[in-house]
Amino acid sequence: MTSLIVGILAGVLCTVSFLPQAIKIFKTKRAGDLSLITFVALCFGILLWLIYGIMIKELPIILANAAMLVLALLIVVMKIKYSK
Amino acid sequence: MTSLIVGILAGVLCTVSFLPQAIKIFKTKRAGDLSLITFVALCFGILLWLIYGIMIKELPIILANAAMLVLALLIVVMKIKYSK
Repeated sequence: MTSLIVGILAGVLCTVSFLPQAIKIFKTKRAGDLSLITFVALCFGILLWLIYGIMIKELPIILANAAMLVLALLIVVMKIKYSK
Repeated sequence: MTSLIVGILAGVLCTVSFLPQAIKIFKTKRAGDLSLITFVALCFGILLWLIYGIMIKELPIILANAAMLVLALLIVVMKIKYSK
């Protein structure tokens, strides 16, 4: 039960952490210093964590990675858009 | 067993994904477009995942998050250094 709380906190923190980056790119329309490889690889990595979470039936891993995947994809799309 | 392989792949991919960002900052000495809040929050989030992994005794979670924590901290240090 305690591990569930720690897992949920970890998931919420990691997921929420992507928000300021997404907002910063959206506001400044700049993303030149961000590594595209990093965020594309992160998307695939997060997708694998999501699959892993489904396999071991751990809800915090499933929910956190589903939300993180959406935000990471958004950052990738904005990075490509504003790096043109 | 299959979940262990998926977990290890996810961990390796997410961990390795931080490398190009760290190398990019190191080479360009630029990190202005990166969100400091994002990477500081990620450090705390990854630390909590590490604790969670230890609690549920899942080796892929422990190893991946230990390595990611080192790289995320490195990015935070460089971000602070090169944003001055």
